[in-house]
Formats: sequence, C-alpha cells, structure tokens
Amino acid sequence: MAKAVKKHFKKAGLPPGTLVHVGERKAEAARITVIDYDEQNFEEKQVSSVEECFPFKTTPTVTWINIDGIHDVDIIEKLGRQFELHALILEDILNTGQRPKYEDLEKYIFIVLKMLSYDDEKQALQTEQVSLIVGANFVISFQESIGDVFEEVRDRLRNAKGRIRKMASDYLAYALMDAVVDNYFVILERLGESIETMEEELVAEPTEKTLQQIHLHKRTMIFLRKSVWPLRELINGLQKSESPLIQESTGVYLRDVYDHTIQIIDTIESFRDMVSGMLDIYLSSISNRMNAVMKVLTIIATIFIPMTFVAGIYGMNFKYMPELEMWWAYPVVWLIMVIIAVCMLIYFRRKRWL
Amino acid sequence: MAKAVKKHFKKAGLPPGTLVHVGERKAEAARITVIDYDEQNFEEKQVSSVEECFPFKTTPTVTWINIDGIHDVDIIEKLGRQFELHALILEDILNTGQRPKYEDLEKYIFIVLKMLSYDDEKQALQTEQVSLIVGANFVISFQESIGDVFEEVRDRLRNAKGRIRKMASDYLAYALMDAVVDNYFVILERLGESIETMEEELVAEPTEKTLQQIHLHKRTMIFLRKSVWPLRELINGLQKSESPLIQESTGVYLRDVYDHTIQIIDTIESFRDMVSGMLDIYLSSISNRMNAVMKVLTIIATIFIPMTFVAGIYGMNFKYMPELEMWWAYPVVWLIMVIIAVCMLIYFRRKRWL
Amino acid sequence: MAKAVKKHFKKAGLPPGTLVHVGERKAEAARITVIDYDEQNFEEKQVSSVEECFPFKTTPTVTWINIDGIHDVDIIEKLGRQFELHALILEDILNTGQRPKYEDLEKYIFIVLKMLSYDDEKQALQTEQVSLIVGANFVISFQESIGDVFEEVRDRLRNAKGRIRKMASDYLAYALMDAVVDNYFVILERLGESIETMEEELVAEPTEKTLQQIHLHKRTMIFLRKSVWPLRELINGLQKSESPLIQESTGVYLRDVYDHTIQIIDTIESFRDMVSGMLDIYLSSISNRMNAVMKVLTIIATIFIPMTFVAGIYGMNFKYMPELEMWWAYPVVWLIMVIIAVCMLIYFRRKRWL
Amino acid sequence: MAKAVKKHFKKAGLPPGTLVHVGERKAEAARITVIDYDEQNFEEKQVSSVEECFPFKTTPTVTWINIDGIHDVDIIEKLGRQFELHALILEDILNTGQRPKYEDLEKYIFIVLKMLSYDDEKQALQTEQVSLIVGANFVISFQESIGDVFEEVRDRLRNAKGRIRKMASDYLAYALMDAVVDNYFVILERLGESIETMEEELVAEPTEKTLQQIHLHKRTMIFLRKSVWPLRELINGLQKSESPLIQESTGVYLRDVYDHTIQIIDTIESFRDMVSGMLDIYLSSISNRMNAVMKVLTIIATIFIPMTFVAGIYGMNFKYMPELEMWWAYPVVWLIMVIIAVCMLIYFRRKRWL
Amino acid sequence: MAKAVKKHFKKAGLPPGTLVHVGERKAEAARITVIDYDEQNFEEKQVSSVEECFPFKTTPTVTWINIDGIHDVDIIEKLGRQFELHALILEDILNTGQRPKYEDLEKYIFIVLKMLSYDDEKQALQTEQVSLIVGANFVISFQESIGDVFEEVRDRLRNAKGRIRKMASDYLAYALMDAVVDNYFVILERLGESIETMEEELVAEPTEKTLQQIHLHKRTMIFLRKSVWPLRELINGLQKSESPLIQESTGVYLRDVYDHTIQIIDTIESFRDMVSGMLDIYLSSISNRMNAVMKVLTIIATIFIPMTFVAGIYGMNFKYMPELEMWWAYPVVWLIMVIIAVCMLIYFRRKRWL
Repeated sequence: MAKAVKKHFKKAGLPPGTLVHVGERKAEAARITVIDYDEQNFEEKQVSSVEECFPFKTTPTVTWINIDGIHDVDIIEKLGRQFELHALILEDILNTGQRPKYEDLEKYIFIVLKMLSYDDEKQALQTEQVSLIVGANFVISFQESIGDVFEEVRDRLRNAKGRIRKMASDYLAYALMDAVVDNYFVILERLGESIETMEEELVAEPTEKTLQQIHLHKRTMIFLRKSVWPLRELINGLQKSESPLIQESTGVYLRDVYDHTIQIIDTIESFRDMVSGMLDIYLSSISNRMNAVMKVLTIIATIFIPMTFVAGIYGMNFKYMPELEMWWAYPVVWLIMVIIAVCMLIYFRRKRWL
Repeated sequence: MAKAVKKHFKKAGLPPGTLVHVGERKAEAARITVIDYDEQNFEEKQVSSVEECFPFKTTPTVTWINIDGIHDVDIIEKLGRQFELHALILEDILNTGQRPKYEDLEKYIFIVLKMLSYDDEKQALQTEQVSLIVGANFVISFQESIGDVFEEVRDRLRNAKGRIRKMASDYLAYALMDAVVDNYFVILERLGESIETMEEELVAEPTEKTLQQIHLHKRTMIFLRKSVWPLRELINGLQKSESPLIQESTGVYLRDVYDHTIQIIDTIESFRDMVSGMLDIYLSSISNRMNAVMKVLTIIATIFIPMTFVAGIYGMNFKYMPELEMWWAYPVVWLIMVIIAVCMLIYFRRKRWL
Repeated sequence: MAKAVKKHFKKAGLPPGTLVHVGERKAEAARITVIDYDEQNFEEKQVSSVEECFPFKTTPTVTWINIDGIHDVDIIEKLGRQFELHALILEDILNTGQRPKYEDLEKYIFIVLKMLSYDDEKQALQTEQVSLIVGANFVISFQESIGDVFEEVRDRLRNAKGRIRKMASDYLAYALMDAVVDNYFVILERLGESIETMEEELVAEPTEKTLQQIHLHKRTMIFLRKSVWPLRELINGLQKSESPLIQESTGVYLRDVYDHTIQIIDTIESFRDMVSGMLDIYLSSISNRMNAVMKVLTIIATIFIPMTFVAGIYGMNFKYMPELEMWWAYPVVWLIMVIIAVCMLIYFRRKRWL
Repeated sequence: MAKAVKKHFKKAGLPPGTLVHVGERKAEAARITVIDYDEQNFEEKQVSSVEECFPFKTTPTVTWINIDGIHDVDIIEKLGRQFELHALILEDILNTGQRPKYEDLEKYIFIVLKMLSYDDEKQALQTEQVSLIVGANFVISFQESIGDVFEEVRDRLRNAKGRIRKMASDYLAYALMDAVVDNYFVILERLGESIETMEEELVAEPTEKTLQQIHLHKRTMIFLRKSVWPLRELINGLQKSESPLIQESTGVYLRDVYDHTIQIIDTIESFRDMVSGMLDIYLSSISNRMNAVMKVLTIIATIFIPMTFVAGIYGMNFKYMPELEMWWAYPVVWLIMVIIAVCMLIYFRRKRWL
Repeated sequence: MAKAVKKHFKKAGLPPGTLVHVGERKAEAARITVIDYDEQNFEEKQVSSVEECFPFKTTPTVTWINIDGIHDVDIIEKLGRQFELHALILEDILNTGQRPKYEDLEKYIFIVLKMLSYDDEKQALQTEQVSLIVGANFVISFQESIGDVFEEVRDRLRNAKGRIRKMASDYLAYALMDAVVDNYFVILERLGESIETMEEELVAEPTEKTLQQIHLHKRTMIFLRKSVWPLRELINGLQKSESPLIQESTGVYLRDVYDHTIQIIDTIESFRDMVSGMLDIYLSSISNRMNAVMKVLTIIATIFIPMTFVAGIYGMNFKYMPELEMWWAYPVVWLIMVIIAVCMLIYFRRKRWL
C-alpha cells in the first residue's frame, strides 16, 4: 500500500505529461507482439523495434499490439506519437498506480485494468496494471511484465474459435477484459479454499497464527475490493458510452462481463462477511477458553483453600487445644474436610460449572 | 460459497457463448413436460425428446415447457435454436451461479430466479436456479432438478382455478415467480422457528454450540439476503419495463409480488437484527458468568487466606512465643478468625457481591 | 416476528386474489358502524348487516363505514363487490402482515396503516392493521378488533368541532391517519418513561435483568422503526399524488402529519442511540466490576501469600534451625511480615489500586 | 428526550390547528418589542399589547416584531389573524417540539430554528425554539423566553452598522439566522474545551466518572446533530427557493450561512469521532489495567505458592523424615526456595511480564 | 480541532463582510511576489506595497500575484477593491477555518484549498489555507505563511518547462492545485511509513504507547479525510463548471487532478482500514496475553494447592494420627503428591494449555 504511494511520489514536481515510468521494473526487456487479423487472414509476429508496428495502423484488418514491459519510455513515446495519444494518457500508462477507469477520447478509448495473481507462498495478491488503447481498427495493450491471461484469446484468434475473428476491435477489447475478469474467479477460488482451510483450523484449534491469517485475509479482501469496485463503473460506463468505436452488438457481451463483475463483487462481500464472522468466532473462542481456565482455577482453589485452612488450624502449637488430645479428632477433621469438598462440588454442579 | 466460484471457473478460457453445463448434476435425466392451454382447452404431457415441443411454438394457445435438469446441453441447444435464444442467454441458463436478474431481449424476456429449500438436517439452505423464458405465447422454465414449487400452478391450470387460464403468458410467468416467492415465506417460517428455539436455548443455558448456531444463522441470513435483494430490483424492473410482452393488467399482480418481496426482505432484516442481538446476549452472558466465577473465587480466597495466615503464625515453632502458653490463646485466635471472616462478608455484602 | 411469517404462510398455494383471513381472530363478531355527514347533517348508526351500508354509497354526503373485525370474509367480499374494490386489495385488507403503504387505484385510494398499543405487562408492542379505502365521498376503514384511536375523530364529527364537517372524504382520511400517528406519540412517551427507569436502574445497580430489558427495548425499537419508516414514504407519496381524490387544501394537513412522522422517526432514532449507549454502559460497568473484584483478590492475596510463606518457614520441623531458639526471633518475624504488608500497601497505593 | 414526546402528547386528541401552548412556560410574561426602520429612520419600542404592532404592518419601512414568551396564546392568535397566518403555522409556533424547517406560504415564509445554550453546571445543552415569519416588509420572531442572541443584530440596526439598514426584510431574517448559527460556534467551543479536559483526564487517570462523561458527550453530540442537520436542508431550501420574498442579492449571504452550517456539521462529526475514540481508549485502558493487576497477582502467587509448598512439606510431623535430622537440611531448603524464586523471575522476565 | 472553532468565534457578532484576520499569525510580514508572463516574456519581482501589483491587472499577459501572510488586512482590502472582490470572499480568505470549496462569481473563480505538512516531531498534520482568485488574465494566491509547494511551478514558469507559459490563467490555477494535491502524496508516503513502523512494533511487542499511536493515526486519518473529501467535489465542480474562465482544453488536466484526488482518497481509506485492523490486532493480542498470564497462574496454583493441602494435613498436631508413626508414610505422601502433580499436568496437556 505504502508502495503505491511511493511510486507516484517519485514523479511529484515534474510538469504534467512528462513521461517517466513509475513502478517496479518487472520485465527485463520490453517485448512487442503484433497480431493482425480479419476473418480470412491471421498474422502473428514478435517485433524487435516499435517502428515495425506502424504500418499496421492503416490496414483495414484488426491489429492487436501487445507490449510486455512498460519501463522502456522510448517505445511508449514513439507509439504515442504515431497513434496520436494524449500526453496524459501516456503518463497514466506508465504510472502503475492507477485505479481501473476508462476515458473516451473520441479517436480512441483508454482503459486501465488490474490483472491479479495470487502468490501462494506469501499468501498475498500481486497486481499488475493492464492498459488498453482501443481505436477504430487496432487495440494496443500494455502490461508490466511477460506472462498474462491473454493466451486463450490468442488461441481463439489463431484457431478462429468462436466469433472473435469476425468482429471488430471493440470485441477484441471485450475479449481481453473478459480474460482479466475471468481470472478474478481463479483468484477468488484460491481465496475461497484458503478461507475454508482457515475455518477448519479455527474450529479445530485456533492459535494466534489463525488470528494473523484472519487479518491478512481481511486486508486482502479490502485490497481486492478496491481493485474490482471501480471495474463495475468502468464497464457500466463503456456500456452506456455513445462512442462510435463500440458497436451495438458488443453491448450484450459487455453486459455479460458486467454480470460477472457483479458476481465477483458479491463473492468478495460474502468472503468479507465470512472473514468478519471468523474474527468474531475467534474472539469468543478465546473468551470461552479464558472462562474454562478460570473455572478450573476457581474449582481447585475454592475446594482446597478451606480444607487447607482447617489443616492449618490443627497445625498450631498452642498448649491448650483440647481437640488435639482426643482420639476421634483426626477422623472428624477428615470428615469435615470431605464434607466441605462435597458441598463445594454440589455447588459447582448446580452452577453448571462441572 | 467457494463452490459458486468453482462452478464458474470450470468454464474460464472458453469463448463466450460456449454451452457447457456448470453446476452439480442434480437430476438423473432431463424431464420435459409441456402444458398447453387457453380458456377452453388444456393439454398436459411429458415428452421424451425436445423436438416434440416445437409444434407448440406456433399455436395461438399459451404453452409452458418445463425442463427439469439442465445438464443435457443438447436439449438446451436445440431449444435455443428453435426459439431463437441468444447464445449468452443459453450460457446463463446452464451456468447455475447467476444472480437473480431479468433481461429484455425484445422477442422474449429472460428471468433468472433462485428457488430455495431448507435442509433441516444440515440446517443449511439449498439453492436451485430457475430460469424463465417468457415469449409472446410461451413460457419455458428450466430447473436444475425434479421436484419444485410449481405444482400448485399446474393444479390451477388443470382445474381452471382463478383467472390463470384466461390470461396470457406473462400471467403464467407471474404465477411461477409468485410460487417461488411464496416458497420463501415457508423458508422464513422454518428459520423463524429455528431462531426461536435458539433463543430459548440462549436464555436457558448458552453453550459453545449455541454460538456456532448463531454464526450459522448469521451466515444463512447473509446468503438469503444475497438471493432475495436482487429479486426486488428484478420485479421492479419488470414492472417498469415497457416490453409489449407484459400487459398492463399484469402490473397490479407484479406489484403484489413486489410487496411480498419487500415483506421478505423486511423479515430477513429483522431476523438479522435478532441474530445479532443474540450474539450480543451470548457474549455478555459469557462475560457475566466469568464475573460470577471470579466472585466466588475472590470471596472464598479473601476470606480464607487471612485466616490461614493466622493459623500459619501459630504453627511456627519458635521457642519463645508467649501466646502459645496461655490457656485463652486458642479461643481468642478462633475469635479473631471469625471476626476476619465476618468483616469480609460484610464488605462483600456492601459491595453487593453476595 | 416469526408469527408475521406464519400468518402469510397459511395462504401460500392459493391463486392470487383468493379471500382468506390471515391473522389472529381479534374481535368476536365484526361490528359495522356508519357515520354519514355533511356540514348540516350528521347520522351515526351501528348496522347489523353490511347491506345496510350500500345506500350511503350514492348520497352526496360523506360516509364513513368502519368495520371492526376482518375475519368475516363474507362482509369484506360483499363490500368489495358493491364498492368495486380489486381482488388483490381485498386480499391485502384480510392479510394482516402488510407493511404501511398506499395504492392509488383511480376510483379510490387504498391505505394500510399500523395502529400500535403498548402492553405494559409484557412490555411489548401490539400491532393492529388498519386499512382505509378513500373514495370520492366515502371512507371505509377496516380494523382487526374493537377499540381504537378514532374515538376523538368521531367526537369531532358529532360535535362539529374544527373544520372536519365542512371538508370532503380526503380530510376524513387525513383525520384518521392523524389519529393513528398521534397515538404513536403516546407509545413513544411510554417507551421514553420505560427507558428512563431502565437508565436509573443501570446507574444504581445493573443486573442481568437490566441487560435483558435493554435487549428487549432494542428489539422494540427495531420493530417500531419497521412500522413507522414506510409511513413516511406513504404520506410523502400521498402528498405528491396527483389523484383528484386528494384536494389541494388537504396538502398542508398532510405535510403536518408528515412533519409528525419525521419527528417520531427522529425520536425513535434517539431512543435507539440511547439504548445502544446503555448497552455500552452496561458492558463497561460489568468490566469495571470485574476489575474491582480482581483488585480485591489481588490485594488480599499478594499481601498474605508472602506472609503465610514466612510463617510456613518457621513452621518447619528441622532440628537445626538456629532462629527458632532465639528469644527475639518471633517479634522480628512479626516485624518482617508487617514490613512486607506495608510495602505491598504502598505499592498498591502508588498503582492507585487503593 | 422523553420530554419532547410528552410536550406533544398533551395536545393529542384536539382538532388540527387548535392553539395550545405546548412546552415549558419559560418567560414570566410575554414581552413584545417592535423595531421599525429604513435607511434613514429607526424606531424601537416595547409595546404592552399586541394591537400596537398592527399599524406597522402597512408602513413601507421594515418592521421587526419580536415576541419573547409564546405561552400567551391570545397574542399569537391576534397576530395570526392580523397577519393572515395559517392555523397550522400558529400551532407549529406554539408547539416547541418542532424540527428546524421552513415553509413557503407565498405571502410569507415560515422558519423554525433551534437556539442552543450550554448549561455548564448540568453539562447539558438547553434548547429554545425560535420561529420566524418573514413577510414582504416585516419579520416576526417568536422566542420561548427573554434573553437571546439577537442583541448584536439590534445593535447593528440601531447604529446602522454594515448594510443591514439598507436591505429588505429577507436580509433581516438572514441576520437573525446568522446570529443563531454563529452562536452554535460558541457552543462548539465550550464542548471542544470540555472534550479536551476530558481527554487529559483520560490520559492521566480514567475513572468511571470519565466513562459517564464520555457517554454524556456522546449523547450531547447526537442531540446537537439532530438540531443542526435539518438546518442544512433548511438553508439549502431557502437558497433554492423561488419565493419573491427572497431577493437575489441575499443568495450570497445565505450561501455564507450554509457554509457555516457545513463547518458546524463537520466539527460535530469530528467531535463525535473524537468521543468515540476516547471510549475505545477508555475501554482498552481498563483492559490494560486488568492485565497489570493480573500480572502482579500471578507473579506473587506463582513465586510463593511453590515455596510455601516446600515449607509445608517440612512442617509435617512424620516421625521418620530423615531430612529433618540433618544439620544442612534447613539451609538447603532455603537454597531450593531461592532457586525456585529466581527461575520464576527469569521466566517472567523472558515473558516480558516484568 | 477545538482551535478551528475558537478561530471563528473571535468574529461572532460582527456584521457579515467585516474584514478581520481569523487564525494564527503565521508569517512575520506579508510578502507579495508578482510573476507576469506570456509565451515570450517573463517577469518576476517582489513588491513592497500592494499598489505596485495594480498595473498588471490590465496587461494582456498572465499575472500571478502571490501573497504570503494574510494577517495584513489592509493589503487584502486594497486588493479586493482593485480587483472588485466581494466582501464575503475577502472574509473567507481571511478566515482560515474554511473547508475546501470553489465559488464561481462570473468575473472570477474563488478556490479554497488546504495545504498540508507533516510535523515529524509532533507526529501531527499541520494545515495551511491557500486561497486562489482566478480571473481572466490573473491568478491571486493567498497563503498563511512563507514556504510553500509552489516553487516547482515557479521553476517551470521561469524555465518555460512544459506548456505552462503558453497557457492562460486557468492552467496556472490548475498547476497550483496540482502542486497542492501532489504534496498530499508526500504526506501519505510519510504516513504510510509511520504505519508500517507501527505495524512492526505491533507484531514485535505491543505496548500502551502503540495503542496511543494507533489512536493518533486514526485521528490523523479523520482529519486528512476531512481535508481531502471536499476537494473531490471542488474539482468535479470546476470540471463541470460552465464558466468561460475555464477553457475546454484545461478539462483533461482537471480530470487528471481529479483522478489523483480519488487515488488519495482511496489510499486514505486503505490506511484507515489498516489502522482499524491494527486496533483489532492490538486488542486481541492484549486478550491473548491476559490468557497466557491466567494459564500460568492456573497451572502453578492448581498443581501446588492440593499438594500444599496434603502437606498441611500432616502438619497437624493431633495426638492420635496413626500415619505419622509409620516409617513408610513420608515417602508415600511424596508419592501421592507426585501423582497429583502428574495428573494435573496430563489434564493440562490434554486441554492444550501446555
């Protein structure tokens, strides 16, 4: 969290629109891949310099330029100049602390998404910013590092599965967004399993570690929520947008992604409620255990303290203690002590402490 | 909960509109029943293949096709093709993790509902997805398994009870929705009884099991709420919809279901408040009991500790302890101890611990 | 609460509009009273059969038909037929689990209210459903049992007090609603007194009974809130309604009731806050008392435990314990013990435990 | 609070518009003062009968009639008749349980405000209802008792300070409202000081009295909030009102009061948060103290209990206890006991209890 | 907080628009700097009297007048007269208790911002009010003291970095607002670091000081939130404003600041959640420690109390205690005591207290 703040801070003091990469340097070298297709044709290649993409700009086919690694400001700048992207948009692409949002700039639509991955070892969510530029016949996607959730979209393009090859650039953008959103379900599943495990632990034997995990999950939920909530607005905005770039037929698909987003938000809220409930259970189980400890102490102490007192009495060394001389005194004292113990036990039984 | 996520996940990576059943396989074999009626005529039959339903599509009478079991993707696909249903709608029917919603697709209205049943043994709610396709003169309903709440609607159709036989397909859809909503009252009644029992237990003798039950109910309420809240929006949307499929005369009936939904939501909220209150009561009764335990310990300990000390004094073996030799020393020590005890008791009485 | 659910449930499975009384049978026999008036004339009579009311329907004078006891479905049905009431409206009148609401059906306005009474013995609110049908020159009111808050309205009608005799049916409806709302103030006053008593108890000596009462009041507030909140919407709706049945001049009176409703809601919220605050006070007073108990235990124990230990030392029977033989040993031991006690006391004093 | 309810209740059962004073009788006798002014002229006099005010109604100058004490229903009634005030407005003036609100009645605007004063002794807020009738060239103000915050407005009028003498009646109304709102800052300052003192006490040494004060302040905040929130709406409403009585040039002044109201609400919210935080601090300091008490008990008890046990062993009177006869036994027992104590202390040190 | 209230209070009782400086006197003497520029020219000078600024008013170049120190009412008044500023605006500039807001007064736009600085020593936020007057070709900025976040804007102006010299006064205003908002990120970074440190302390060893710091941070968050939330509205308002002073091309920059504000709010909310979570962790760690303390006490006490009792028995001085005479009695008693201890330990082990 504090990191998100630091990222932005590096840049404070520069004029707006200055291009500086703000974020961790995730990929070693930026990798540029171009996919160009229409219903009949399909071409996929990895280019070494950004200039090789420029010819695709004017072709009537749909072109998808994917850039893995945004730390190479030079590439972004050249692309920006070629595709006439606003300086502030380029700044947003480079600054990885954005919230999910979309902006309609007439010639193109700018979309920022958060791709999530769950690091099992650290039990923490990793986030990566994905920016999309959706133009009339091209989509440019920017990712922070190599390795993404878009492989299945590429597959569908390669094999002409579904309707994707017949559709325009807005459908491609939809497909990419859908891939990102679908991946959230994977994350949620992992979290769901982790919560279930945690719950079993909680019932079996809650330890301080359980508490830490509950808090960790609580924080993860807050973080997840922050990433997903703005997505809802984003997609809703796209749906209602009157941009000519978004064809009417894509509306039904956007609604579908929207429904998924709502489902994800619902699940996050359920998880939040479950985790909160677990915190309550943890706290009352601690309280119950304290109670149990106290009861044992009280029972032992209140039974033996009076008896020890009686023993103490007859341990006194007074010269004139008539009882000490009588032969029946010792058994009687034992009897008295047994009676005390039995009374106590009956009392505790009635109080339901036993 | 985690299941709902898993369900969807199986499908991630396929192009949108691919028909794959996502959910538990509830019914053994899909069962298709057709009811065809108008004011004069009534025909009910169970068909073995979906093609037998197709002729009913063009008749002027109202046709209700009910499909129990949605795992047979083939049936859904054929129906979809015949009745011109959008691929995404078919996907939603098959994917049982939907929220209640409705979509107006001009030629037909698509409605998703959640049918609930309460499993007394597990004290858990079971949910089943019911999808309705409402066309000009037909309603197609999809259920996950055999056994439903629609029997009384069938009965009214068979016996021409009420106005149902005189009305169009939208009234039939209303009747089905009404049946689902009416069933929520049954669920609420069960929950209400269960909460009452729990409350009596709480007053009589709260145990850790009571706590677990409170949390179970809390979670059930969250779950129930999640199923019912979107219903409100759904019915409100239908009411305000300008679809020609929904006749003006049906409006008053929809308003009635809407009122019922509000009543259900109200009751759920009340139950939630009650369960929350019970948690508070549980926690403070635990606290009170701890207090009681502490008091007993304190009273016993603080009375006997000083007296035992006195006894300890005269248990010392010093050669020169003048008191030990005096004949009145022993009764005096007893007196002192009694005075200590009485003082303590008076102190506790004044502190109202006794 | 659970009852409200049961009530509705009895009816599930019947076609909508079927008339079945759902609720407790409160009045022995339905009592029908008719009041017919204009500025000059006033007629009041109790009729034995509902048919006797029908002639009043067509008179130009304002007619108020009051029905105490709605279990006689026959009466409701006949009235419904005569006054052309919709089947669903009649159903709502008979089903006493409605929320306060109003419906504008052009020919008449249907209003549902909740009349409250406070049962001092059970310290519980009793609720009774009051339904009003407001037509052009008639008002029909339905109550669950004999005994109501309308007596003063009747009085004003009889004695031509205020402007009521000069006004139309909408003013009569207003007067009835005003009477119901005014009665809420009486309820609130009772609750206010009860809360004050509870508060004094809480300060004087909080017991577990106090806690139970706090929770009882909390629940009463929730219940009250549920009855009054929809009222606000209802009156607001009436105010903004464009029904010709509501004359413009009545608007200012409706605004007055609206203001009262807001005041009631405000007071309920204040009471809720007060009761919540009392729960907090209760819990921290429990906590404080536990603290006090612990302190006494700790002070007594920590003073006497070391001294008892010293006494125990010289109670040992070793042959070679030089101290035992010395004449000054006993007073020195006493001195040591006194010093221990004094040190402890100083320590506690400094810790502010004394 | 309960009083506010009682006040209203006295009136329940009367026809709407019946004039009965509802509230405490604050002033001994109603005092009527008239100020009449324009840019050149200024006249101020105290009149003994309300009729003396009537001539001012028709003068072109601005007239401010101030009435201290509203229990004299007769005065209110006469004024009402003369200035054509609606019966319900007069009722609202007399009934001191109103919420702040404004009503536009075309010929005049009716404003209800709450004037607050802080009773240092009882540490409680006192509230007084101020009603304003703003007409074309007159303002009538009603207060419950003599002594108000309007003195500085009178002063500005007398000395023609600022622009007040050049402006119309709406500016006068604004000036009165501004005076009431400015007074809230005084109240807030008092509360702020009181909260600060409380905070110092909380840090220095929290007692049960501190807790009571926290709750008292919490309730005061709730009460204050209830008085100020509706004010915001009121002023906002006035600002947006299209009444010809409010001149455009007054808009900027109303916005100023509006800003002040927002500032006050902000401060109240901050105070609420501070008081809530103090409750948390109180509770955890109690918890910490309990912890400290327990630690002392545990340390003393666990050190001495084993040592006392050892002493007890050698206090036994068995004939054949070889250790008792050995000359080195006594010092060895001492050694053992010292070792036990040191081990315990090391253990506690490592657990960081010391 | 209480100070904010006091500030305003000093002024209560004066007619609106009276110019009195309300706030701490931060700068020694007001310092006036003028920057005048267009694309080609740049002039920067510090003037000693406010009158020297007046000639710039009519030049076509953009003029930025910056005033450090607002306690010199005379300067503000003269400026106000020269630039035709409304009396209430001048009052707002002088009264440093304003919330961030903007007002469109046709000839100019008035903006109030809060500049924050973090005092590391006191761990408290310092706030300074910055007011901007944005006219057609001038911006006047008012600050409470010398030393600000505008230095980099001046730098860009001096060196013609970015587009600032080519743009109009609205862009300058944007640049100043952007500088203020960018500075919030610095503050957030500091807070983020402080929270992280606190978190490590919390895990390592929570003390009462940690609790105080948590509460301090909680309050800082509330304070920060109060400063930033209205900013969002402010910028949103500016964006949607139809003032001719704000050119369309500036819109995209305002949207950028808006996005930053949202990011800041998001981060504040995250910090709030983190701090709340830390409070929960603190409280449950206290609870856990109490539990640990209790366990040690219980284990030691319950093991030794019964054994001490046994020792007490044989410390009694009865003449006829047969066991005392037997040679095997002493070792048997030891055996019994060891058995008691072992049983206890097994019991605790099974209860998982060891």
